[in-house]
Amino acid sequence: MRDGGRDRRERREDVRLRGFSTRASLAEATAWVDAHAAALGAEAVEVDAAAGRVLRAALHAPADLPATDRAGEDGHAVRSRDTVGAGAYHPLPLALQAPGAPVGPVTAARVVAGAPLPPGADAVVPFGAAHEDGASLEVVVAIAEGAGVERRGQDLRAGAALLEAGRVLRAEDAALLACLGVPHVDVVRRPRVRLVIAGAKRGPTAPAPPDAAAPLLAALVARDGGAVAELVAGDDRSALAAAMAAPGVDAVLVAGRTGTGPDDVAPLALGDAGDLALHGVALRPGGSAGLGRVGGVPVLLLPGDPLAGLCVYELLGGRLIRRLGGRAARLPHATCDVEVGRKIVSAVGVVDLCRVRLVGGRVEPIGSVEHGGLASVARADGFVLVPAPLEGIAPGARVTVHLYGAAPAELATGGAP
Amino acid sequence: MRDGGRDRRERREDVRLRGFSTRASLAEATAWVDAHAAALGAEAVEVDAAAGRVLRAALHAPADLPATDRAGEDGHAVRSRDTVGAGAYHPLPLALQAPGAPVGPVTAARVVAGAPLPPGADAVVPFGAAHEDGASLEVVVAIAEGAGVERRGQDLRAGAALLEAGRVLRAEDAALLACLGVPHVDVVRRPRVRLVIAGAKRGPTAPAPPDAAAPLLAALVARDGGAVAELVAGDDRSALAAAMAAPGVDAVLVAGRTGTGPDDVAPLALGDAGDLALHGVALRPGGSAGLGRVGGVPVLLLPGDPLAGLCVYELLGGRLIRRLGGRAARLPHATCDVEVGRKIVSAVGVVDLCRVRLVGGRVEPIGSVEHGGLASVARADGFVLVPAPLEGIAPGARVTVHLYGAAPAELATGGAP
Repeated sequence: MRDGGRDRRERREDVRLRGFSTRASLAEATAWVDAHAAALGAEAVEVDAAAGRVLRAALHAPADLPATDRAGEDGHAVRSRDTVGAGAYHPLPLALQAPGAPVGPVTAARVVAGAPLPPGADAVVPFGAAHEDGASLEVVVAIAEGAGVERRGQDLRAGAALLEAGRVLRAEDAALLACLGVPHVDVVRRPRVRLVIAGAKRGPTAPAPPDAAAPLLAALVARDGGAVAELVAGDDRSALAAAMAAPGVDAVLVAGRTGTGPDDVAPLALGDAGDLALHGVALRPGGSAGLGRVGGVPVLLLPGDPLAGLCVYELLGGRLIRRLGGRAARLPHATCDVEVGRKIVSAVGVVDLCRVRLVGGRVEPIGSVEHGGLASVARADGFVLVPAPLEGIAPGARVTVHLYGAAPAELATGGAP
Repeated sequence: MRDGGRDRRERREDVRLRGFSTRASLAEATAWVDAHAAALGAEAVEVDAAAGRVLRAALHAPADLPATDRAGEDGHAVRSRDTVGAGAYHPLPLALQAPGAPVGPVTAARVVAGAPLPPGADAVVPFGAAHEDGASLEVVVAIAEGAGVERRGQDLRAGAALLEAGRVLRAEDAALLACLGVPHVDVVRRPRVRLVIAGAKRGPTAPAPPDAAAPLLAALVARDGGAVAELVAGDDRSALAAAMAAPGVDAVLVAGRTGTGPDDVAPLALGDAGDLALHGVALRPGGSAGLGRVGGVPVLLLPGDPLAGLCVYELLGGRLIRRLGGRAARLPHATCDVEVGRKIVSAVGVVDLCRVRLVGGRVEPIGSVEHGGLASVARADGFVLVPAPLEGIAPGARVTVHLYGAAPAELATGGAP
């Protein structure tokens, strides 16, 4: 047997009743995700529905904007030279034409903002700078050439680079495309996710706990631009293998049955259905995560414990969904760099995801890394990732906090996501 | 006539063909919004749908979490004193009980993470620290009391403060509520918005331009926690008044017909249907904005020009929707404080919303404040608000940039939204 084969078999060992003899580093697990999750293909969506989607290819302006020389404000179109010398004490009379009619010497025609500039005119006198008096317009301000006028192509030239590939389209971009008469746009297809609730493992006397994975993961997948297309439950090895192997989705997230208990069969089921690439990641909480593929579709195994499952989703699952959807792979949280106020205790050899609070502009850990459950997340302003080589971070050091929700007011002058 | 009446009438003057003789300050317009938009009532939603919604009243924990003493990891439940002296070269044998059975002296019972701790046990030996040998468990590590055990109420005590009123519920909060067995939660009702497209005013020869307001405003209203419940069109005075007065929504946004042209009848229609509180705001772009109420429902008039309409939405409309929905009134954009690299030119007496780019870590304005349309927004990283008293901001000064979308990589170490 080749070494590669042996190494791979070791990663797939059955850890039940034995524990993990080795774990992949978080960097290895991240690299696996990056190697097996490329951006999906394109689909056309109407511009009304394009905000928040990822542009598949660069767009160039299909037309000039404005499409014609036009009035930039409401008023009267004039020839600017006819207003030279006008003033409050020296009104100049111009002959009023019909609205939109060509403007010749010493004439004026009403025009509204956005309407084409009448032929012959080179400026617009706003209504406040003149008043109509029968068939005459009394102009009381001298107007410079081009004032109140928007020239064809002034905002955007036909053919100019408009939006780069991979841009997350803003509402304003969609509106700009509407202004340009673009009816639909090619965006990266939204990743379809099957969420498999493997069910909490439990002792013979325990009631089934409420399922927290479905509300948690559905909302986070949506945050990352994907959609939970199917939610299925299954708690034995063959049911889980079948749920992983069913076609029709771009990724499978399995919540639960990843640990060392006798009914922790999710890794075995992934090996049955396809390829279990790794099981066990040097991450706390979340050390029992697994990764693999079935028929080319990536499958992530998340611990059933809600906090551990959350950590694995944040560090591996979100990245998977974002990459499939053509988005930036990095964590989507806003961040801030803050000084540590109370020592963050960590373990050497694993990445610790430490929930923290911001107190007086400094960072304090909430409880210990492995304990506190989702209640520690609810109390937290964000989290700090402690790199594997460190056994902690001392007070006074600066750390990057990934923020849950908006930053507290004390950081209101802080930076950007 | 009382002075108050005269003052009010002046704010409601017909500006068509005359121009604005006065405009409200942005601070006055903001204060009007704050005075006329209080948080809506509550509705119950299932916790699966609670992420992103605003909690109506403070929540306290309805139960202990965990609900019982339980195993924190997979392994064997033991009495810690029975493991004293155990080591790799000195395994200690314990008699194996059935899984979940009470643990007496010198016995052990399998347990999985999350299952209740068997009576008598005070610690869990992980599977990697012992091995089963027939009816016996050989323990090779001394375990401290409480190791691998989660105590009832350790994460959260019944009755403890859990989530404060007004919190925007995170996915993690919804999952925590699911863990606690909470089926639904009272949140602030989502503001229902009627979007009235008043239609572009136009000269006699111009084709109707594509409508950019609907995609723009629908996406921004959703960003601010509201929903466009109705999209209607109407372009004459009576149709607009009827659209403003129809019941069934919490706010009305009218796009277009706010300026000084002859068919700019939106302010008149608002006066017909209810009360036009102010028309004209000292804001660029967006000076023709209007505010008022019909039957207690706030109505915002937005200029039909897409850029001006966007600015008015950001500074007044978004605030209105956020306040109705119980959210923080301030702008929702992430911000960063950056040095000005090229002079920002502004006008005294109005707030200028200046689109800017970040170049080499410094701020540069894009074109002039009033020009560039939505194309200037697409090219921008964000915007700077120049206060009314300033005629510009010189290079070297620091300004707060409100960021569109995510911050450019050069600011990746920046702060928080």
